[in-house]
Amino acid sequence: MIVIVKPQATAEQMEHLLERIRQYGLQPMVSTGSERTVVGLLGDERLLPDGALESLPAVEQVMPILKPYKLVSREFKSTDTVIEVRGIPIGGRQIQVIAGPCSVETPEQMRSSAEAVKAAGCRLMRGGAFKPRTSPYTFQGVGDEGLDYFRTAADAAGLPIVTELMDVRKIDLFLEKGVDIIQIGTRNMQNFDLLKEVGRLDVPVILKRGLSATIKEWLMAAEYIAAHGNHRIIFAERGIRTFETAYRNVLDVTAIPVLKRETHLPVIVDPSHAGGKAWLVPQLSKAAIAAGADGLLVESHPCPEEAWCDADQALSPEQLTTLMGDLRRIAEAIGREL
Amino acid sequence: MIVIVKPQATAEQMEHLLERIRQYGLQPMVSTGSERTVVGLLGDERLLPDGALESLPAVEQVMPILKPYKLVSREFKSTDTVIEVRGIPIGGRQIQVIAGPCSVETPEQMRSSAEAVKAAGCRLMRGGAFKPRTSPYTFQGVGDEGLDYFRTAADAAGLPIVTELMDVRKIDLFLEKGVDIIQIGTRNMQNFDLLKEVGRLDVPVILKRGLSATIKEWLMAAEYIAAHGNHRIIFAERGIRTFETAYRNVLDVTAIPVLKRETHLPVIVDPSHAGGKAWLVPQLSKAAIAAGADGLLVESHPCPEEAWCDADQALSPEQLTTLMGDLRRIAEAIGREL
Amino acid sequence: MIVIVKPQATAEQMEHLLERIRQYGLQPMVSTGSERTVVGLLGDERLLPDGALESLPAVEQVMPILKPYKLVSREFKSTDTVIEVRGIPIGGRQIQVIAGPCSVETPEQMRSSAEAVKAAGCRLMRGGAFKPRTSPYTFQGVGDEGLDYFRTAADAAGLPIVTELMDVRKIDLFLEKGVDIIQIGTRNMQNFDLLKEVGRLDVPVILKRGLSATIKEWLMAAEYIAAHGNHRIIFAERGIRTFETAYRNVLDVTAIPVLKRETHLPVIVDPSHAGGKAWLVPQLSKAAIAAGADGLLVESHPCPEEAWCDADQALSPEQLTTLMGDLRRIAEAIGREL
Amino acid sequence: MIVIVKPQATAEQMEHLLERIRQYGLQPMVSTGSERTVVGLLGDERLLPDGALESLPAVEQVMPILKPYKLVSREFKSTDTVIEVRGIPIGGRQIQVIAGPCSVETPEQMRSSAEAVKAAGCRLMRGGAFKPRTSPYTFQGVGDEGLDYFRTAADAAGLPIVTELMDVRKIDLFLEKGVDIIQIGTRNMQNFDLLKEVGRLDVPVILKRGLSATIKEWLMAAEYIAAHGNHRIIFAERGIRTFETAYRNVLDVTAIPVLKRETHLPVIVDPSHAGGKAWLVPQLSKAAIAAGADGLLVESHPCPEEAWCDADQALSPEQLTTLMGDLRRIAEAIGREL
Repeated sequence: MIVIVKPQATAEQMEHLLERIRQYGLQPMVSTGSERTVVGLLGDERLLPDGALESLPAVEQVMPILKPYKLVSREFKSTDTVIEVRGIPIGGRQIQVIAGPCSVETPEQMRSSAEAVKAAGCRLMRGGAFKPRTSPYTFQGVGDEGLDYFRTAADAAGLPIVTELMDVRKIDLFLEKGVDIIQIGTRNMQNFDLLKEVGRLDVPVILKRGLSATIKEWLMAAEYIAAHGNHRIIFAERGIRTFETAYRNVLDVTAIPVLKRETHLPVIVDPSHAGGKAWLVPQLSKAAIAAGADGLLVESHPCPEEAWCDADQALSPEQLTTLMGDLRRIAEAIGREL
Repeated sequence: MIVIVKPQATAEQMEHLLERIRQYGLQPMVSTGSERTVVGLLGDERLLPDGALESLPAVEQVMPILKPYKLVSREFKSTDTVIEVRGIPIGGRQIQVIAGPCSVETPEQMRSSAEAVKAAGCRLMRGGAFKPRTSPYTFQGVGDEGLDYFRTAADAAGLPIVTELMDVRKIDLFLEKGVDIIQIGTRNMQNFDLLKEVGRLDVPVILKRGLSATIKEWLMAAEYIAAHGNHRIIFAERGIRTFETAYRNVLDVTAIPVLKRETHLPVIVDPSHAGGKAWLVPQLSKAAIAAGADGLLVESHPCPEEAWCDADQALSPEQLTTLMGDLRRIAEAIGREL
Repeated sequence: MIVIVKPQATAEQMEHLLERIRQYGLQPMVSTGSERTVVGLLGDERLLPDGALESLPAVEQVMPILKPYKLVSREFKSTDTVIEVRGIPIGGRQIQVIAGPCSVETPEQMRSSAEAVKAAGCRLMRGGAFKPRTSPYTFQGVGDEGLDYFRTAADAAGLPIVTELMDVRKIDLFLEKGVDIIQIGTRNMQNFDLLKEVGRLDVPVILKRGLSATIKEWLMAAEYIAAHGNHRIIFAERGIRTFETAYRNVLDVTAIPVLKRETHLPVIVDPSHAGGKAWLVPQLSKAAIAAGADGLLVESHPCPEEAWCDADQALSPEQLTTLMGDLRRIAEAIGREL
Repeated sequence: MIVIVKPQATAEQMEHLLERIRQYGLQPMVSTGSERTVVGLLGDERLLPDGALESLPAVEQVMPILKPYKLVSREFKSTDTVIEVRGIPIGGRQIQVIAGPCSVETPEQMRSSAEAVKAAGCRLMRGGAFKPRTSPYTFQGVGDEGLDYFRTAADAAGLPIVTELMDVRKIDLFLEKGVDIIQIGTRNMQNFDLLKEVGRLDVPVILKRGLSATIKEWLMAAEYIAAHGNHRIIFAERGIRTFETAYRNVLDVTAIPVLKRETHLPVIVDPSHAGGKAWLVPQLSKAAIAAGADGLLVESHPCPEEAWCDADQALSPEQLTTLMGDLRRIAEAIGREL
């Protein structure tokens, strides 16, 4: 950590700063330049309370040197982590497309969804029994029995399941139903109590990026899960909020190579929520794979216009099949496989 | 709701659109203009699943006419709601400044905080026993016993208490300790399960705005609480996330008059989290009151530089007293009182 | 255009609204719904002054139905426009990578840049003689003679040149030197006097997206050029400003398919300015091509670390050559060629 | 400037870094910590080309210590600059409200505008003869003769005039007509050639903030003007672009105290463009003054609904008069005068 001292700081204020630094168990190193005095701190700067030095009268600015994340960082583990889910690798050479409906609706809809997902060549399936909806008056998900419909349909097709957990009180149910990957949604990326609880489980977690979460905040949210013991974390970029109103979110492809440099964990992309329209999904999916994503989360539905939610962003079975073919060519062009 | 039809839509696609509208129990009214055909929908458009019409081939764009919030809207109740907390009115002519430390630390710190808050002329006190922290490695709040320290100190000074609830499993504890106002924090503004639960309580709720929540999303989050039965909701603007890096957040003063027009509920402002620096608090506080806020949430600490978190944004007891004097003059200038 | 009437509007206010609409030469059509009255406007809504109806007491909201751009829209011309520059097509099946240094430095640097650009297989070259710099104290470009260095070097390699115009007073110089494509930079996207002037020229224009320009504003900026007579316009996405600080800008890949749907004009991408770092350029370039971009603007330099500006974002000749190979495979995977 | 060295940097890469630093005339000072090596640079870091060190293989991150602006900074001049315009002080204890129409329309409209501005107690007048409009098909300002209408009307009322300059080729006209304050608009904040030219004039300049300009970029734009000789610069905050769609822009009140700390120059606010609606202007104006602004730019019109542009954001003469009374009370409450 580097502390920039105000040019007008008095000797007394300076002394007070140095004293405080030592009180936190750190060693100050003062360099006096022509325009500014700078104090370097030797030791683990992560011990300092937030804002502790900034509040002192001598201080102009405090600049951290170390990154605040450890377990999820490339410095901690330099090789790519591959997460195996029932034998299916996420994070390796093979790219995984996780498809399925926005929400679980009926046993029949799930059966037919699972068949289409399987037929298109996908190896994992997604679907939500509990839905985070902006309005209290819209469909909130079918709830507990939805997990049964999903489990049954996916088992019949031999697909591991990914579903969203919103409430700590549902964890036992998720374990009982053998959810294969737990998804933490955008609105819960910084629901720290939920992160701590999934950190105690032995189930892989897909951690979606918050609507306006920085890369650093996202990595720190993953660090919460890892710090509580669960290292099987998959990052899912799903578009960020910007000033643009022509589409729902802006898919942040830059996040893909940046995350791959900062963390050893897999990175996937959700083009359906990013663009918010089915017709955008193919181009965004191709961009994500070309930029180095390890997989995708794609919404598909046996009959999109009849979907109970997000009807305008689901792919039909035919569209999903076509997409898989297109992505296979991109994967090969970059030396990977689908 | 208004549906704009694509110029190239076929008669068959158009018929399909009209059929779907009728299936949802709405009545379509077609107007054919020179450049576009427009379909108006008569009936309660809130019944339509999201994206249902957008997914149809005839549709260029769907534009809602009605606002999605009801119970919290001015249309539902045209007069200002005043929320009484132990006889202290929030939302009326009198402005309330809720002050206190970022986090509960020790019984002594809370005692001395409460005295300073009382002495400065504030009528309610804030403080957090559970802290949502970006890093799993920093201080997470003193936890359950913190509520005792807070309760004891505030009771001695005769101040009702405001504290943040992050986890549904702590609700019984909050009720047992008689928390006077429950705060839902920025990161939980769309934690819908938590909103539903506080919606079932008979305790006023301060609902902070999410980091990048739109006014509409914020009103809908309040609607969740109201729809479950609790109508005593106070909005707290606390700065939004933008591209600017010179300060932590941008205090959105425009939100104050806009909310006051859209909702009958009180609106307060948190200048401490908005600016992130103690030296900014006075100017931001004055701006908030001048713009029509019904109150403030201000961080104060007996000795800011020793605070266990956010040391750089807490006011000292002297600074808080000075601020109250400054705000009293602004309040009088706009015909209110402090 | 659709006008939503306030529920509390009086008959007199309503009559005033209808009168005003007729005064602007439009025909009002009133539909009375259960919760709102809506007025549709028949005629060319583009004739209404901004805010004219919004200012009336009866009006709750005004919603445009037509898009404000014409000449650049797909509705105006449904087939892709291919812009030929000295026989090189931009906007067709062949993808163009326009490479070269951030700034023109010396005749030797330009000669060696041009050779490397040519050798890598690029067909056009970029370079700036006039540089828009954030600071008045940094290098501002070599100026007029820079165009000579550029022209000479590019001619020797047989490459058409692309260079930025910042000042209307330099147009004669640009014409005299035969600049093949004029670039309008990010900071001048809404410099309307400059847009009008290039609109009068017979030279293709690359129009970069403003730092926080919406798709609509960007299309309207192009409409300025087209409305003054010059229809040879190429859009260049170069990253947008967001809250994220881990990289300079966020490359908005979603803009590519959305623009391709809204306009018949070519769309290219500048991955160098988007990411701001050379190591990000390959992944962003691949994403852009996979998403359907018609070309790229890439910074390259004979010796990046000695570049006079943006040293950290230029590719070396070897890196450029490698990139071209990688992009060729992506191009083939999507049925195009490089 | 502080350079953080990559943990994996080789001795050779480190030596290369030190060499390069010395080549730029700076002195490197190496500190080896337990986790990172840090190099401090002694000397004027402003001499380094952008990105020069970042491009080197040893470098993880470069952190500037000095601020890039000089002449406009508080460090350069610690006391507030008061700019006198025909005897009217801007930046002192007295607050100035500059009112007038969005655009000059007719001699009669300007005469009646000037009378209303004067009668309300304002001391300066605004109005645009040249308008930066998003669409090429809307009213672009009455042009040259507009300055005459404005000059005549304002002279009759004894008001100095403020008007926007968009094109360097209009400078002679502006000087000839004796424009008292030249306004540089939002879209031209980084039109560097225009900034250089107004930097050579002896006329005060109002520099509006770019739509998404950071405080630093805005200060640097002012530095361009100052570096070319003109130190009479007034900053005008006018709302920034964010994700919020409920109002046009977000008035950034935090920018006011932050600018007042960073620069000695006056800071005013444009509440009309910030909110985009007349009904928001009073609350935003009060907030701006309470936060410490030195003045306002307010749109007013003899008959807002007939204004040729921005009809929905102009105040009527009565509304302007009421506003002035309200602001006078706020000014007194904070120890200033209006």
